[in-house]
Amino acid sequence: MTDFSVTKAQFHLPEGVIYLDGNSLGPMPKTALNRAKHVMSDEWSELLIGAWNKADWFHLPRGVGKRIEPLIGAEAGTVMTGDTLSIKVFQAVSAALQLRPDRKIVVSDTGNFPTDLYMAKGLLSHMGPRYELRVVEPHQVEGVIDEDVAAVMLTHVDYRTGQMYDMARLTKKMHDAGAISIWDLAHSAGALPVNICDCGAEFAVGCTYKYLNGGPGAPAFIYVRPDLVEKVDPILAGWMGHADPFDFDLDYRPGAGIDRMRVGTPPIVQMSILEEALKIWETVNLRALRARSIELCEQFIEGIEARCPELKLISPRSADIRGSQVAFAFEDGFAVMQALAARGVIGDFRAPDVMRFGFTPLYIDAEDVAQAIEIVADVLRSKAYVEPEYQKRGAVT
Amino acid sequence: MTDFSVTKAQFHLPEGVIYLDGNSLGPMPKTALNRAKHVMSDEWSELLIGAWNKADWFHLPRGVGKRIEPLIGAEAGTVMTGDTLSIKVFQAVSAALQLRPDRKIVVSDTGNFPTDLYMAKGLLSHMGPRYELRVVEPHQVEGVIDEDVAAVMLTHVDYRTGQMYDMARLTKKMHDAGAISIWDLAHSAGALPVNICDCGAEFAVGCTYKYLNGGPGAPAFIYVRPDLVEKVDPILAGWMGHADPFDFDLDYRPGAGIDRMRVGTPPIVQMSILEEALKIWETVNLRALRARSIELCEQFIEGIEARCPELKLISPRSADIRGSQVAFAFEDGFAVMQALAARGVIGDFRAPDVMRFGFTPLYIDAEDVAQAIEIVADVLRSKAYVEPEYQKRGAVT
Repeated sequence: MTDFSVTKAQFHLPEGVIYLDGNSLGPMPKTALNRAKHVMSDEWSELLIGAWNKADWFHLPRGVGKRIEPLIGAEAGTVMTGDTLSIKVFQAVSAALQLRPDRKIVVSDTGNFPTDLYMAKGLLSHMGPRYELRVVEPHQVEGVIDEDVAAVMLTHVDYRTGQMYDMARLTKKMHDAGAISIWDLAHSAGALPVNICDCGAEFAVGCTYKYLNGGPGAPAFIYVRPDLVEKVDPILAGWMGHADPFDFDLDYRPGAGIDRMRVGTPPIVQMSILEEALKIWETVNLRALRARSIELCEQFIEGIEARCPELKLISPRSADIRGSQVAFAFEDGFAVMQALAARGVIGDFRAPDVMRFGFTPLYIDAEDVAQAIEIVADVLRSKAYVEPEYQKRGAVT
Repeated sequence: MTDFSVTKAQFHLPEGVIYLDGNSLGPMPKTALNRAKHVMSDEWSELLIGAWNKADWFHLPRGVGKRIEPLIGAEAGTVMTGDTLSIKVFQAVSAALQLRPDRKIVVSDTGNFPTDLYMAKGLLSHMGPRYELRVVEPHQVEGVIDEDVAAVMLTHVDYRTGQMYDMARLTKKMHDAGAISIWDLAHSAGALPVNICDCGAEFAVGCTYKYLNGGPGAPAFIYVRPDLVEKVDPILAGWMGHADPFDFDLDYRPGAGIDRMRVGTPPIVQMSILEEALKIWETVNLRALRARSIELCEQFIEGIEARCPELKLISPRSADIRGSQVAFAFEDGFAVMQALAARGVIGDFRAPDVMRFGFTPLYIDAEDVAQAIEIVADVLRSKAYVEPEYQKRGAVT
């Protein structure tokens, strides 16, 4: 069984803070700083340009991808890292449209993270007037998947409510209609077991700075089903995805397999930090992680509902359809979150009234949750949040 | 006058190395490590998600862009950093096509860096069969700029030969034909003064890990002429470029001005290192830099031609049309570069026979050049390079 006291000790967590916002930005793994120092002082400084070979920087994006594969149930050789999640969404949507050249509609939902919608729409609107991004309410998605739909792009776990789609069932539904599936795993990878391979999903993307603790702006990842990847003609045909980048051909020849999803020169310092963060997962059993995540979420929901009836749970009550976060609606939620932060309980707020708390088992335990419940209850009981300093908007995350 | 002994002292340069490959990857500024430590230990670790506001991570891409503006002669508010040069090329070509909706041809040349060609072609081939990337020899470029051409995309200084286009004259030629100009400044920014504003060029892009010393995979930059930027409907419509990213609108509304060229969440550690590297330029006069660059290049050319007649200069002999690098052709060039590296002189090789040496005045001086000439001459005279260990291919950079 995974020992979560061991994983907790692997993170730097500030004194007096209960960090329930690892679903937005994970904390720093203690080994990250030494790795960054090593990359900068021993590789960049000393090896200079030679580090691309001698320190094997060139293969780092794939090496990091390999570490993500088991976390999302992906086959070997299917995950590439780089760029940002926005860019990876763009790559996936473009590739999906190539696989269904006779179809012009991409379906998504209003619960999707905005950048996914923006990037898809940005692409479609530049491909011509016949292309359409059809955005419906989450409960309407199933009803609109038909044989005109090229691809369905959904975020597995809703970033606000934590509501989770049944990935296997939905993917089957998409396939029955001949549509391609694109899953955004930003709130899934590292939060719960994902089995992308068993679902048969064509594409998945995700970010690594949330539950994977890769640091602010850490590179994103993309999964392409292995039987399809060599059918993809990359729209972002960067030189690092070329079959032989250092031939400096005038013509692009896509690299073998997932290599073609590389674009430009990867951010080596940031990617090395991410690799360090991913090493923590070597000792983690994802079923144990999920069991503990559910325990923590249930503990929080029960505690808050018992003590703070003014907060309305907007996450699903059933753990079966909930990710690793819990959200409550409250009119003065913004001020409450500010007051909580002042007391060391850090969650975040999403307009108009969503108070969001992430439960990341690698470093949050039952004692943290018990304390957090006490503090939330106290802030609400004492109405500490009505202080003008807590009402002031301006915080953006 | 700029004191280049002061700037040289600001870099970490390994003992016994004469680094003539700063045109590929600049060395590490000494302050970079402390900045990375600060971002990781004091910001990420301690402020966690709050660092986006409290450490103003959110505005870092623009702050870094401001520091690049004077280096390329750009107006205030015109440069955004992020992503990779490949992505910035993609953004520029897409935007240029929007500004000339009736034209479908983009012109470039065989001297351009391959990723620029690949990215442009990747975009055009996904926009429909009527779009064309027309790639001609450098000397043919002027002859093919006509009123069917939407945009001309050129790298100001050729990455192999160091040959430099007359940016002002070529831009005028493009404008006379109604074409949009896109300049890649990868080998110009930090190498010599650029005056993008006076040229009236519409777009410029560049990378920051060469002459700007931002570190491996440092973020790229894009310039958009200020009167045009709000006409650009970004194809890469990422949430960070939204007018109000934290409104989480379902619809994209582009940010004001250059903000719309942001895409996804920026790599904060890497971007902070870049900012540190750019601070060095506060004390540098670009005319003095250029004068010294020319001196160093001339010294090297004269020394090598006098001592090593077997090497054939393929860079322009006239400094007026040469960047800050010098290239020689030699059949056994690969082995020579390996043998030179073993003696501490680091340049690089580009197939089939190009030996490339970069002269970066911030940290290379006349004494370095004199020593480098001695070592090149000795390696050639002694035929040290015929050793089997130097003939072995496999090195990629």
